[in-house]
Amino acid sequence: MAVLLVECPDRRGLVHAISGVLLRHGGNVVGNHEFVDREAGRFYMRTEFDGLVDSTSLVAETRAVLPEGAEVRLARPDPKRIVVLVSREHHCLGDLLVRHQFGTLNARIDAVIGNHDLLRGLTEQFGVPFHHIPSEGPDRSVHEAAVLARIVEIAPDFLVLAKYMRVLSPAFVASHPARIINIHHSFLPAFVGAKPYLQAFRRGVKVIGATAHFVTDELDAGPILVQQVLPVDHTHGAEDLARAGRDVEQFALSQALRLVFEDRVFLCGNRTVIFD
Amino acid sequence: MAVLLVECPDRRGLVHAISGVLLRHGGNVVGNHEFVDREAGRFYMRTEFDGLVDSTSLVAETRAVLPEGAEVRLARPDPKRIVVLVSREHHCLGDLLVRHQFGTLNARIDAVIGNHDLLRGLTEQFGVPFHHIPSEGPDRSVHEAAVLARIVEIAPDFLVLAKYMRVLSPAFVASHPARIINIHHSFLPAFVGAKPYLQAFRRGVKVIGATAHFVTDELDAGPILVQQVLPVDHTHGAEDLARAGRDVEQFALSQALRLVFEDRVFLCGNRTVIFD
Amino acid sequence: MAVLLVECPDRRGLVHAISGVLLRHGGNVVGNHEFVDREAGRFYMRTEFDGLVDSTSLVAETRAVLPEGAEVRLARPDPKRIVVLVSREHHCLGDLLVRHQFGTLNARIDAVIGNHDLLRGLTEQFGVPFHHIPSEGPDRSVHEAAVLARIVEIAPDFLVLAKYMRVLSPAFVASHPARIINIHHSFLPAFVGAKPYLQAFRRGVKVIGATAHFVTDELDAGPILVQQVLPVDHTHGAEDLARAGRDVEQFALSQALRLVFEDRVFLCGNRTVIFD
Amino acid sequence: MAVLLVECPDRRGLVHAISGVLLRHGGNVVGNHEFVDREAGRFYMRTEFDGLVDSTSLVAETRAVLPEGAEVRLARPDPKRIVVLVSREHHCLGDLLVRHQFGTLNARIDAVIGNHDLLRGLTEQFGVPFHHIPSEGPDRSVHEAAVLARIVEIAPDFLVLAKYMRVLSPAFVASHPARIINIHHSFLPAFVGAKPYLQAFRRGVKVIGATAHFVTDELDAGPILVQQVLPVDHTHGAEDLARAGRDVEQFALSQALRLVFEDRVFLCGNRTVIFD
Repeated sequence: MAVLLVECPDRRGLVHAISGVLLRHGGNVVGNHEFVDREAGRFYMRTEFDGLVDSTSLVAETRAVLPEGAEVRLARPDPKRIVVLVSREHHCLGDLLVRHQFGTLNARIDAVIGNHDLLRGLTEQFGVPFHHIPSEGPDRSVHEAAVLARIVEIAPDFLVLAKYMRVLSPAFVASHPARIINIHHSFLPAFVGAKPYLQAFRRGVKVIGATAHFVTDELDAGPILVQQVLPVDHTHGAEDLARAGRDVEQFALSQALRLVFEDRVFLCGNRTVIFD
Repeated sequence: MAVLLVECPDRRGLVHAISGVLLRHGGNVVGNHEFVDREAGRFYMRTEFDGLVDSTSLVAETRAVLPEGAEVRLARPDPKRIVVLVSREHHCLGDLLVRHQFGTLNARIDAVIGNHDLLRGLTEQFGVPFHHIPSEGPDRSVHEAAVLARIVEIAPDFLVLAKYMRVLSPAFVASHPARIINIHHSFLPAFVGAKPYLQAFRRGVKVIGATAHFVTDELDAGPILVQQVLPVDHTHGAEDLARAGRDVEQFALSQALRLVFEDRVFLCGNRTVIFD
Repeated sequence: MAVLLVECPDRRGLVHAISGVLLRHGGNVVGNHEFVDREAGRFYMRTEFDGLVDSTSLVAETRAVLPEGAEVRLARPDPKRIVVLVSREHHCLGDLLVRHQFGTLNARIDAVIGNHDLLRGLTEQFGVPFHHIPSEGPDRSVHEAAVLARIVEIAPDFLVLAKYMRVLSPAFVASHPARIINIHHSFLPAFVGAKPYLQAFRRGVKVIGATAHFVTDELDAGPILVQQVLPVDHTHGAEDLARAGRDVEQFALSQALRLVFEDRVFLCGNRTVIFD
Repeated sequence: MAVLLVECPDRRGLVHAISGVLLRHGGNVVGNHEFVDREAGRFYMRTEFDGLVDSTSLVAETRAVLPEGAEVRLARPDPKRIVVLVSREHHCLGDLLVRHQFGTLNARIDAVIGNHDLLRGLTEQFGVPFHHIPSEGPDRSVHEAAVLARIVEIAPDFLVLAKYMRVLSPAFVASHPARIINIHHSFLPAFVGAKPYLQAFRRGVKVIGATAHFVTDELDAGPILVQQVLPVDHTHGAEDLARAGRDVEQFALSQALRLVFEDRVFLCGNRTVIFD
């Protein structure tokens, strides 16, 4: 099975045109999703199809029937390659490593980079290289440059921030546009920034949540992929909220990664279009 | 905006063929959903489009490009006409009457029929006729015949069982195939039949639910439209479960009716395909 | 069954002392909830008990065994009396009126006050007086004074803002401390203020919610009673979010009112302690 | 902090009597839960308290003020010791091993026993012994005896069936009453027995779930600890339901284990009383 991804300005007849190209190439459509963002006048389509096709000519011919500036691509069939960035907390990383080992992540973890050395044992247990790049000594830009240098060497498809408690600089973010996924431990846009569980406790919320999102320049303001929630009550102190929250974070992050790694996500300004 | 609904055996090129017909008629596709049931080899499509079209020729030409036995129709733009059947409980009916009055139900309640007379006041308050057809005296078939006669007179598009506590005969069900919607006060297929909340209490469940479904011959076994759940705990007796359940029933029924009345539901054997 | 409510500074032996008073009065404890807020050093207790007791002496004797400044009261057995404030939207009011009529609200709606006249019909249908106090002509303080005057006449136990789209002045709020309940159409503290669904759409959230809370001086910042959520996706425009949100608002508000009207809620600074 | 657990026939004055004993021992109550099952006439209480107490005399004196047949115990402060039984699926085991390693499971996994050898690598990676006891050759009773012999040697507090696909004999179950916890991959009591996801697919449900429960003689009918759900739709085949279900299973099992291992669960006939 192959997946064709199309994004372009909307106009009449796009579905007919694209499905015509696929038909001529002998592709048998198994599943099809389209979406038109009316406000932006933009068309999104994801088509799963069977049948041997000539990829290069399929993409070229599809592009030929579409408006100027169309983005057309075939999803790569092989697992994505990723680097995971961590700090002290183990729960999201542990979950990803188990999925990696059993092939249910749809991605291969090429390395884990930690600004602390605490999760080396867990990582290496799974046969994955762990790089400790301490954030304490050097100033922020020096540390970040070292992290980026290591990442550039590995050249992964995506970066996953699995409770990485450092704010990335605009330059770092710009180096991997729409390719950095973060799990924020609150129900964004509530409780942006530091200590969201303490903020949530003080506000007396009755539901907490976690948000997986793409990272952009603005802190915790990137396009949202997945949000999960959990009911809580007055008996939960800030610590209890954090403990309960960990399970939701783990759940939301792995859901979001599945969507991204299966090529189900388009960006639409600061929002996501997700065909699941 | 108009809605084209297509259901037929699956084969290569259907999307291309149908979108071609629409394009020739000047229809501008606004939203499109397709689904292929692989097991049954069946294709389902729902297309929302703008643009003035000749309905009769659009349907005829669409049918012409599809396999034998295709079902093609344009959704009627006007609100559905319904009859609501009730017994003693008011909560689902109350919710439907409010939505009816403010035009948010996408349907017009032509009449309410009760086997008890308790909900006459509520119904007539909203200017809707209430027919009391007592179920006590006569045997079941006599009562049912009287109810059916009244319904046949009104000739509604759909029957809604809003906590109607009578089991319908196969003949009654056959008179309105895929046009009777029931709300069952449990998370089907758990707790089929009578007193589901008592059954749920005895089983010690930690979540209760409600199920809106089409009615078929087999009790509580028809195609499911919507299921909603609510967490509960050991402090909930059977009565408390019933009380909590009422809010979920009301919620699930109104959601299901919206889906049906907006022509978003196809039947696929004993399952539903819902394009929302 | 009666309900004893106690709130006081925490100290050793409170449960023993209070349960001793109840025992001496012949009260048979049916259910008991306690909570100690460690940060504030404050003790909360709600006890349901059977058995005929002398209320005045029970309260006095309970107070006698507690620290200075303890608040002790027996919940009144009769339904609360409320006034509902509305603007244009009918869904929350409709739900409350149905519950009022069938005695499942645990409260009596003495009047509905609208700054528009649109919901008069719905209200009067249920035999409840509707007062239209237009907000257009006069300046805000004049309008508010008129509303408050009408409320003072009725002297209700609680005010319910059922989609009342006016911001209350501090003076108004101070006139009914911890007695005004609002339904906010977002998952607070996200999207405070106006047009939360438009804000939510622009932020691209994957879950929307509604928050029922007590009203305080600070806009949308009062103690939270209930939060409910609903998953959404990229196909939901701002209008769709608003429509979906209405069902959650209705659900959250009626849940919150049940908790308040059954005397299950304590205030603990800006948070609520809810014994359900 | 210590935890006192009491269960006995209900009678007037129990809370007062027990809190009096604690007070005399210098215990400072931090949290307190009681519940009376009216139908069974049974009283349950869980009290968290600070302060150095003489455990033996506290338990003895508490028992002295309670009715005949009261069960009184202090929760052991040390982590529980458990054995995990598995078959082929790794996801629940992986989650437990990560929590075990980082001390967030409140239990120590003393061994994993598999009727297949597939999860040896994962288990041993975490430094936990793995015992492969094949179920293919011998008849069921021989296999079970071998498993039981190994367990008896280890003498754990609890057995956790983490997707263990074998039905235990009544004798096995009787050997560890209320000490075997299973995760069933459906929303019990729906879809008891084999292939629940295929059953769920055929029934066309719109929500799937997982149930963590104590194991009793009757298949999938033991007291329920935790139920979790996930919405699904017509695009989910049986395989997709199984995949989605795995995340919910993992979540429900770890939640249930936390409740059991923190001594928050009482049995009440075939139901659970859970103080969380």
